[in-house]
Amino acid sequence: MSPSPAPWIRFVALRPPSLKDNTADTDRLLTALKKELAAEEIDVDLDLLKQLPPVLRATDYRIRCTVFRDRRRWVLTGIDAFDALRPAAGIAVDLGTTRVVLRLIDLASGRVLGEHAFDNPQITIGPDVLARIHHADSPGGLKELNGLIVGGLNTAVGEICRTAGIEPRDICAVSVAGNTSMTHLFLGLEPRWIIREPYIPVVNRPGVLKAADLGIQVSPFARVLVFPSIGSYFGGDLIAGIFFSGLHRRPEPALLVDVGTNAEVVLGNRDWLLGCAGAAGPALEGGVTRMGMLAGPGVIDRVAIDPAGRRFDIHTIEEAPPIGICGSGVIDLAAQLFLAGMIDIRGKLVSAACGDRLCVIEGLRHLVVVPAEQSAAGKDLTISQADLDSLVRSKAAMYTILETIAMTVGLNLDELGTFYVAGTFGCFINPRSAIAIGMLPDLPLERYVPIGNSSLQGAALALTSENAVDEIDRIRDRITYLELNVNQDFMNRFSAAKFIPHTDVGRFPSVKAPQQ
Amino acid sequence: MSPSPAPWIRFVALRPPSLKDNTADTDRLLTALKKELAAEEIDVDLDLLKQLPPVLRATDYRIRCTVFRDRRRWVLTGIDAFDALRPAAGIAVDLGTTRVVLRLIDLASGRVLGEHAFDNPQITIGPDVLARIHHADSPGGLKELNGLIVGGLNTAVGEICRTAGIEPRDICAVSVAGNTSMTHLFLGLEPRWIIREPYIPVVNRPGVLKAADLGIQVSPFARVLVFPSIGSYFGGDLIAGIFFSGLHRRPEPALLVDVGTNAEVVLGNRDWLLGCAGAAGPALEGGVTRMGMLAGPGVIDRVAIDPAGRRFDIHTIEEAPPIGICGSGVIDLAAQLFLAGMIDIRGKLVSAACGDRLCVIEGLRHLVVVPAEQSAAGKDLTISQADLDSLVRSKAAMYTILETIAMTVGLNLDELGTFYVAGTFGCFINPRSAIAIGMLPDLPLERYVPIGNSSLQGAALALTSENAVDEIDRIRDRITYLELNVNQDFMNRFSAAKFIPHTDVGRFPSVKAPQQ
Repeated sequence: MSPSPAPWIRFVALRPPSLKDNTADTDRLLTALKKELAAEEIDVDLDLLKQLPPVLRATDYRIRCTVFRDRRRWVLTGIDAFDALRPAAGIAVDLGTTRVVLRLIDLASGRVLGEHAFDNPQITIGPDVLARIHHADSPGGLKELNGLIVGGLNTAVGEICRTAGIEPRDICAVSVAGNTSMTHLFLGLEPRWIIREPYIPVVNRPGVLKAADLGIQVSPFARVLVFPSIGSYFGGDLIAGIFFSGLHRRPEPALLVDVGTNAEVVLGNRDWLLGCAGAAGPALEGGVTRMGMLAGPGVIDRVAIDPAGRRFDIHTIEEAPPIGICGSGVIDLAAQLFLAGMIDIRGKLVSAACGDRLCVIEGLRHLVVVPAEQSAAGKDLTISQADLDSLVRSKAAMYTILETIAMTVGLNLDELGTFYVAGTFGCFINPRSAIAIGMLPDLPLERYVPIGNSSLQGAALALTSENAVDEIDRIRDRITYLELNVNQDFMNRFSAAKFIPHTDVGRFPSVKAPQQ
Repeated sequence: MSPSPAPWIRFVALRPPSLKDNTADTDRLLTALKKELAAEEIDVDLDLLKQLPPVLRATDYRIRCTVFRDRRRWVLTGIDAFDALRPAAGIAVDLGTTRVVLRLIDLASGRVLGEHAFDNPQITIGPDVLARIHHADSPGGLKELNGLIVGGLNTAVGEICRTAGIEPRDICAVSVAGNTSMTHLFLGLEPRWIIREPYIPVVNRPGVLKAADLGIQVSPFARVLVFPSIGSYFGGDLIAGIFFSGLHRRPEPALLVDVGTNAEVVLGNRDWLLGCAGAAGPALEGGVTRMGMLAGPGVIDRVAIDPAGRRFDIHTIEEAPPIGICGSGVIDLAAQLFLAGMIDIRGKLVSAACGDRLCVIEGLRHLVVVPAEQSAAGKDLTISQADLDSLVRSKAAMYTILETIAMTVGLNLDELGTFYVAGTFGCFINPRSAIAIGMLPDLPLERYVPIGNSSLQGAALALTSENAVDEIDRIRDRITYLELNVNQDFMNRFSAAKFIPHTDVGRFPSVKAPQQ
């Protein structure tokens, strides 16, 4: 079937009833729609049935149907006149632990009508998944966490619709990609067994659900596609990322890495997919280094240091006065510090090179990135030796995981044709910097494809792709999850990777390490 | 597939999760259940998913599942321990315009746990379908009518469960058979186009719905199978009747007639089905003759008149003092009056034969069936000449319809191997009496199979039959609806049938008409 630009909007003109053809309204509509969709079954909510007789007669039996699909079933999600003025829209959601991002899409044109992000309000309960899951065990805890995210989403939906000038009831399709724990809290499912051996989610394939059942205030007939997960540690956000990257459709092996608290990696091609996830340490995530934060105006996303004069050229989002730094900014900063000789191969600040940018706060050496007088935070923006140590461990973990997954299938990392780099922090990771610190392998830069928030992108793609559910299911079913076996070999590789760029500098020919 | 005695109850023992097998709870259960059911898809309500983790762990992964089926989809409607004490029950409903009958069934054994009937509370709005449909057009009218029947059903469900000692939440399957209009009012669907040319229902195949969506207070996960209809004048009650009779599975042609306000007739075999419905007049329905009523204690259901002494031998339900007469009682009475020479071949009361049983009330001749002193009504129970005239028209209409449908396929009525007689008035029609007045053809009595309330029976059968939905669908799809063309030929046949038993007495050799 050739892809339709607007798979969820279909026009059907029915022959009006007569004494010779007195088929019931619903059967009349569904027969025509089944033909149009080549569908065997179409679900219709009872409350939508109730609207059918007046709408059919008012529109002279010429109907714009909005539909959605759940594997072999289609669902009718709305009916209106051929020339209805009301738009039919969809909302894609990246359901992050820290940040939730929504994208509003016009289903007729595929056009993006707006984006909106907000901090996951569950942060008030706990900053990380673990704290929230423990809270869910307390009486009323799960309900509270569920209410927070559903309420936050409803507020955001109201916001994004107001800005775009449409009504929430015009939204008839929603897709949600999140990690397994966030998905459970969103669905109101008990997450307690996710974090307890043997780590069992309640559900891996929530499928397509009714928005109303989830408390999401959009059209009462809207459906919500919830991305499936592989297990407790490989969630729908990653499946969305693979779906968006198209890695699963390519003949040659490619790799997708999503850089966050966990290093989440998928290696594969159209025939096989191997996934793994491992703790990469918190240093890469905004909000962990004291100065770190999520993308937003004034957040440092790019850093250049002139190696000769060691002048810092700081770029911030929207070029606003600097207030902090995001994950990709930290990687850029570390790379530039290394290339300027201001940190050594172990990631330690080099006093001679740092000069008066060095200071000691609470007994810990810090480097001043932006002095107080240039910062919008009202104080020096600094990065501490502890932050840098943490970053080095994180990048070493990441590289080791990449090395391990490639080894498992007998590939060298430099054999990869494409290397997709996703980052859910809103800033794009600069592959050159990630290579410079030895976090990513030293491939020709053109093989790196930054895909940004691939979870959101995948969720959005599902709203314009007729076969999304099947394709997503196939991705899920094809992934082999590689349990990282942290044995002596792994630890040896990890130790070797704890240098910048690596103990074996021959692996990073493009990185011109300064003389020390 | 061989029929299971309890298709909706399945036991699955799951391998408990381990690090080597960390499938999610839902996927673990559904994989096993799909295998057990040979099902491709199983729906589970989100709120049932929420119950899964504690139930699985408390039962050591040995689960009694209650399920239901909707064409190619199965639905999980409940989970409990292998040795759960709570029963799993179903309720079959005959949704009559006048009377609603419920039957409670134990899904494990198929045993009937109880029956309960109540007057359709919509009678307060209007006694017949037409009055109610007009009321549904008024503001709030449809909601009111829907609330009346749903409320009535909920009260009845409470009643029947209390008597049987179970809880409404133990009911996980419901089946409802009613005519097209009653079905619409039950579903809250606008019935206005059913009675307006070209007579279009909102839906002919409501399918399997959630009890909760319909406001039926049983298990929140219960499903309701609503019998499909052919059109405005051929409803789910008839399809249920066919389903129960098994007419659609037999090689030789058989006929099913449901005697009520409408004469509803189905003729066919396993290859073809022809249905028609025509107004048979109100005389056959309880509540129309002044003394007429629905079945209940004290209602006359059998009458014998000794032709010599013209003594009346009256039988009442539960042998209680007589209070009225039901439809089958009226037919019995008319037959006996005719055979005793008390009415003539035109249905007129014969003064000489009736003697002092004759009286005149408000200028109209009446026959006293039960004198006041023997009646529990405190007055004479009588049948008027007008009642008898009406009965004669009704029986003539019925016979003409039977003749017409048989002629349409080139059959003589005496070629029918089996003749199913359904009556929804609770009393069984005595075929001998129906033959005596010429309402039914003069076949050998053994070909008549009275099947009572076949709508209720069909609804009940659906609750113990795994393939009911498919079979019911196939029945629906196979029926050709014969529009009765009331032309001169029809009128001629009707006129000929307006005699007792018929103008052509040769057609009724078994009826020994008295000399007049």
